Amino acid sequence: MNKNSSNTMALAPNTSNKRQTVCIFGTGDFGRALGHKMIQSGYHVVFGSRSTQTSSLIPKDAEVLSHAEAAQKAAIIIIAIQRQHYNFLTPLAEILQGKVLVDVSNNLKINQYPESNAEYLAQLVPGAKVVKAFNTVSAWALQSGTLDASRQVFVCGDDMEAKQMVMDIARALGLTPLDRGSLLAAQEIENYPLQLFPMWKFPILLSLGLTAFFFFYCLIRDVIYPYVYENKDFSFFIAISIPNRICPILALILLALVYLPGVLAAIIQLYRGTKYRRFPDWLDKWMLCRKQLGLVALAFASLHVLYTLVIPIRSFVRWRISSRTIALALNNETEPLNTTNAWLSDSYLALGILGFFLFVLLGITSLPSVSNNVNWREFRFVQSKLGYLTLILCTAHTLVYGGNRFLSPSSYRWYLPNAYMLALIVPCIVLVVKFVLVFPCLDKPLTQIRQGWERNPQYSE
Amino acid sequence: MNKNSSNTMALAPNTSNKRQTVCIFGTGDFGRALGHKMIQSGYHVVFGSRSTQTSSLIPKDAEVLSHAEAAQKAAIIIIAIQRQHYNFLTPLAEILQGKVLVDVSNNLKINQYPESNAEYLAQLVPGAKVVKAFNTVSAWALQSGTLDASRQVFVCGDDMEAKQMVMDIARALGLTPLDRGSLLAAQEIENYPLQLFPMWKFPILLSLGLTAFFFFYCLIRDVIYPYVYENKDFSFFIAISIPNRICPILALILLALVYLPGVLAAIIQLYRGTKYRRFPDWLDKWMLCRKQLGLVALAFASLHVLYTLVIPIRSFVRWRISSRTIALALNNETEPLNTTNAWLSDSYLALGILGFFLFVLLGITSLPSVSNNVNWREFRFVQSKLGYLTLILCTAHTLVYGGNRFLSPSSYRWYLPNAYMLALIVPCIVLVVKFVLVFPCLDKPLTQIRQGWERNPQYSE
Amino acid sequence: MNKNSSNTMALAPNTSNKRQTVCIFGTGDFGRALGHKMIQSGYHVVFGSRSTQTSSLIPKDAEVLSHAEAAQKAAIIIIAIQRQHYNFLTPLAEILQGKVLVDVSNNLKINQYPESNAEYLAQLVPGAKVVKAFNTVSAWALQSGTLDASRQVFVCGDDMEAKQMVMDIARALGLTPLDRGSLLAAQEIENYPLQLFPMWKFPILLSLGLTAFFFFYCLIRDVIYPYVYENKDFSFFIAISIPNRICPILALILLALVYLPGVLAAIIQLYRGTKYRRFPDWLDKWMLCRKQLGLVALAFASLHVLYTLVIPIRSFVRWRISSRTIALALNNETEPLNTTNAWLSDSYLALGILGFFLFVLLGITSLPSVSNNVNWREFRFVQSKLGYLTLILCTAHTLVYGGNRFLSPSSYRWYLPNAYMLALIVPCIVLVVKFVLVFPCLDKPLTQIRQGWERNPQYSE
Repeated sequence: MNKNSSNTMALAPNTSNKRQTVCIFGTGDFGRALGHKMIQSGYHVVFGSRSTQTSSLIPKDAEVLSHAEAAQKAAIIIIAIQRQHYNFLTPLAEILQGKVLVDVSNNLKINQYPESNAEYLAQLVPGAKVVKAFNTVSAWALQSGTLDASRQVFVCGDDMEAKQMVMDIARALGLTPLDRGSLLAAQEIENYPLQLFPMWKFPILLSLGLTAFFFFYCLIRDVIYPYVYENKDFSFFIAISIPNRICPILALILLALVYLPGVLAAIIQLYRGTKYRRFPDWLDKWMLCRKQLGLVALAFASLHVLYTLVIPIRSFVRWRISSRTIALALNNETEPLNTTNAWLSDSYLALGILGFFLFVLLGITSLPSVSNNVNWREFRFVQSKLGYLTLILCTAHTLVYGGNRFLSPSSYRWYLPNAYMLALIVPCIVLVVKFVLVFPCLDKPLTQIRQGWERNPQYSE
Repeated sequence: MNKNSSNTMALAPNTSNKRQTVCIFGTGDFGRALGHKMIQSGYHVVFGSRSTQTSSLIPKDAEVLSHAEAAQKAAIIIIAIQRQHYNFLTPLAEILQGKVLVDVSNNLKINQYPESNAEYLAQLVPGAKVVKAFNTVSAWALQSGTLDASRQVFVCGDDMEAKQMVMDIARALGLTPLDRGSLLAAQEIENYPLQLFPMWKFPILLSLGLTAFFFFYCLIRDVIYPYVYENKDFSFFIAISIPNRICPILALILLALVYLPGVLAAIIQLYRGTKYRRFPDWLDKWMLCRKQLGLVALAFASLHVLYTLVIPIRSFVRWRISSRTIALALNNETEPLNTTNAWLSDSYLALGILGFFLFVLLGITSLPSVSNNVNWREFRFVQSKLGYLTLILCTAHTLVYGGNRFLSPSSYRWYLPNAYMLALIVPCIVLVVKFVLVFPCLDKPLTQIRQGWERNPQYSE
Repeated sequence: MNKNSSNTMALAPNTSNKRQTVCIFGTGDFGRALGHKMIQSGYHVVFGSRSTQTSSLIPKDAEVLSHAEAAQKAAIIIIAIQRQHYNFLTPLAEILQGKVLVDVSNNLKINQYPESNAEYLAQLVPGAKVVKAFNTVSAWALQSGTLDASRQVFVCGDDMEAKQMVMDIARALGLTPLDRGSLLAAQEIENYPLQLFPMWKFPILLSLGLTAFFFFYCLIRDVIYPYVYENKDFSFFIAISIPNRICPILALILLALVYLPGVLAAIIQLYRGTKYRRFPDWLDKWMLCRKQLGLVALAFASLHVLYTLVIPIRSFVRWRISSRTIALALNNETEPLNTTNAWLSDSYLALGILGFFLFVLLGITSLPSVSNNVNWREFRFVQSKLGYLTLILCTAHTLVYGGNRFLSPSSYRWYLPNAYMLALIVPCIVLVVKFVLVFPCLDKPLTQIRQGWERNPQYSE
């Protein structure tokens, strides 16, 4: 609302408080739901349909006219029709001249057609201003009013004014319009509702792969080895003991993988002496899914905490402790307190607690509503400083847990080291390289490069 | 801001950067707070008051005039006066002709008057454009600047343009306006600030009722029965043991009740052969509070986890374990490891951990800021697929916990079965019916019906 | 978008769907990133630069012209240049007459210059309409498209219309503009990106101080005292036992400090008989950081829970329990169940669990996306009613934990009472004063004062 219009109102009160008219082509499920919602929000709705017979399913306050008649009544026409029927619009081209056509269609597959539905519509009716919108909203959500999932409406189109008109309608319906630029973005917008967590694919596949590997690794060491050599049935380790080995290992490796691409990027930038050359594709993709990697790592860490805390309730653990106590009692022995053991046990638990606590803090700050309320300096402080502190604490937790066990030959069953030793490789590499990069002789040029300085500037500005 | 105005500016720079004037009738607490905030946001504010004497409480930069004079200065007049005094506006009708009147009033009770305050105002001053807004914001929040609670301003009114003007003011004050349609919505908007978690009422009452029932059920079985038959005082079970029976039972039953209405709706739709007939009212209401039911269930599940994890710290449990160990030691017995018990104990714990983990994931995705960032496909994947997986895991957790105990007669004290058996009824029914509905012979027609197909179409389109 | 324009469109379809032109002065890192994003969002971008040679770093679709030429092409000019070079704009004053100048600059220190950069710009070019915006967005975020941190763009300026134009651009770029009023707010907006959790400073410093104090207090009582008198090495208590004393103490004290200022404010208001006099500055500041105090308290409470739950896994605890069991077994003793102890142990655990559960609930409702979805009545119910209930439960938890230990002289080592006794002082004071304030003789006048009533009204209205 600009100042002009409000001034006009004050001087010559505008008495035409008629509602804006919107036309909807198509009386299918989605068209009706959208029409219903628009009437509720104060719009006047005209349906354009092949047959103008009013069905009882069409909202009561709406008109139903032929396509040509309906189109003439409104500046905005919503095309709630499937792409394969779009060619019926060709004869109407003259009437649609200069109108805003809103393409709300979705496809069944990602990239089903060479061009997006909205671009196809724009080709069919070149005189109209095509805007893509509302395809991310479901008919069911509009009908039931429970917009639990996304209220976001992605909008794109080549005409600014037309886009604004559509975004105003979206706002009036209680939705959140997001301008995605020109009609070129339509393909992406049409693919959006067909996606199923695309950013999560790589982290989840990676963790499934690692889980499978470490599961069989631990199965061999902890179940098959004692069965073969000692004929002991520890198959029940599959339920808790082995998952409780896998979870911390995956949490630690994935957390290190969150910080590895940043370290690689720094090395590449230092080597190239500029930030203006693109990273290799795999590194770009890796950097974009760091948040998801971190959250999957947090999930494994949380499971590790739960698995660890139930230890004293486990029937096997109770049996083991009780047998040991009985054995000592029967041998009339009293064990003195081993202060070193107490120190090791307490400090690895304490490191784990603090690491997990910081990890959860990182997770909370990555909630959209929290990260929207911090500025860049704060966001980087949390994600970088606190993140590295978490990685250090968790690595230390694993190192202290191991103690000097890695020296004892009994830890190597069938020459396989303890699984936790494998888990330490990636985090230790990341921490060592990061430690090297912190030295001023490397940190200073890196900061300069990131502020836009170039070692060998190739382009005059 | 439309294109025209920006073009105009580029060609003939508009030099009148005077601030917009807003008039406020009433110099009470809320009127002053709103005026203060508006001045801060760059508006020029004119108060309309019975006495035009400036009080030191009125913001310094505001003018105070008579009602008639103040009204003439602005296109928008905010009526910060209580409903019972609205009739003083009748003599001003001519001046208010065409003005935007903003009704900010609240009542003391839900549905206090037959018509909403805003509709009453519109009747009193028929020539004005009445908009309902700002009633959800508190004077204290405006004054202190700590808008911790809702920044949402619900706006409704019959005139689109007037509504837009008010929504622009709300945005300028740092609030989030939400268009709720025509003035008919005013009643609902006026009731909103008087509500106290209306969607939570049913889930909380239901869980209180069930809690009371299961509390007395367990009290009889676990405290009164041993007291009567064995003369043992287990009254301290009231603090932890009994709550730790009630919590998992309620979590499981409430979680099953989240999925029951969906199953019922599917049966009704299959029977009717159409999705275009409304569900019975109770089912509609039930479906709308599923999220709340689920969150209450999650609360009980979390309490169950905490209660379970403190078990080994309990003085009673330590005493019991220690007495058993001493008894074994004194009898010179060594108990061998019971692998079946180890399997049962570990697998019911593992199922519980995984179930709780998924349950927390479901809870996180129901946070508004998270669910706003997923598309419909993803939301349904999480809430339906992961939800059923959670229900299956939690039901299995309870079944394995029970083991074959339900066969032993000692589980039936006074013919009362163990409480966990009662908890299994609803989830098992839901899972069995859902399992039947997944078969293609039922799933295929259901999918068609949900896409708009009708078995006996009664209306021509 | 107002009605007029859409009507105009319907009647005389506007065929000029040319994109809006925006000019950017400066081809540095931020200017280029902003230009790139604007082109993506459908704007036509003209760069104004000293040398008009196109560098390959500048987005392809942008024009590069001299400053004067570029300025004439657009109504909006973004000044992406450092403050110290602003004076090059003085000769351009005539061309910039009536244009919207957007100041996007940031400083290196808080309050680096006496006046904000935007105000300095407005002084240099008095004929232009200066708007402050986009300084909170980072070039990197714009380039990479990962706007994980704040999408918020604070906007301020003296001209409403100019501000609206800039806010529309921000929305088109997928950002969330927030109007912060007149250009006077520019200083604050320029300081914003330099801040590092300013609201958290006091709570964190306070808790660090208290942590240090209680750490040495417990060190003396629990490590040094037994070392001096019993020559026992309990140094490993530093890892878990002492932190697990400090955490609950700090959680309780900080939680009480959340409610203390409210109680003090009530006393001051009752004493003064009015709510219209400002509180002392320290009280105002204290009240504004209550949310942060509460969240720090919750962090300590969470750590306490984790530290407590690992108790049974600790090597020291296992040794202590096992030694005790062996000692009893060797002495051929069987200990009967002490029901009082069972009651005390279970009820203090249960109180702690319930208190922590409510505390977490409070924490969840303080998430921005959750608190935005509740009305004022609900927010106050949760934060006040549930908050006090949490405080009562946590205080009771500590009291029951202590039991009647405070009577035993052995609790006073070197005349130092147990640390938990010190922790009880503040919460008990808060609860007692609050209890007194609830009595009608004090509650009634307080409610009246808060609704605007004054005991000695000094100003006529």
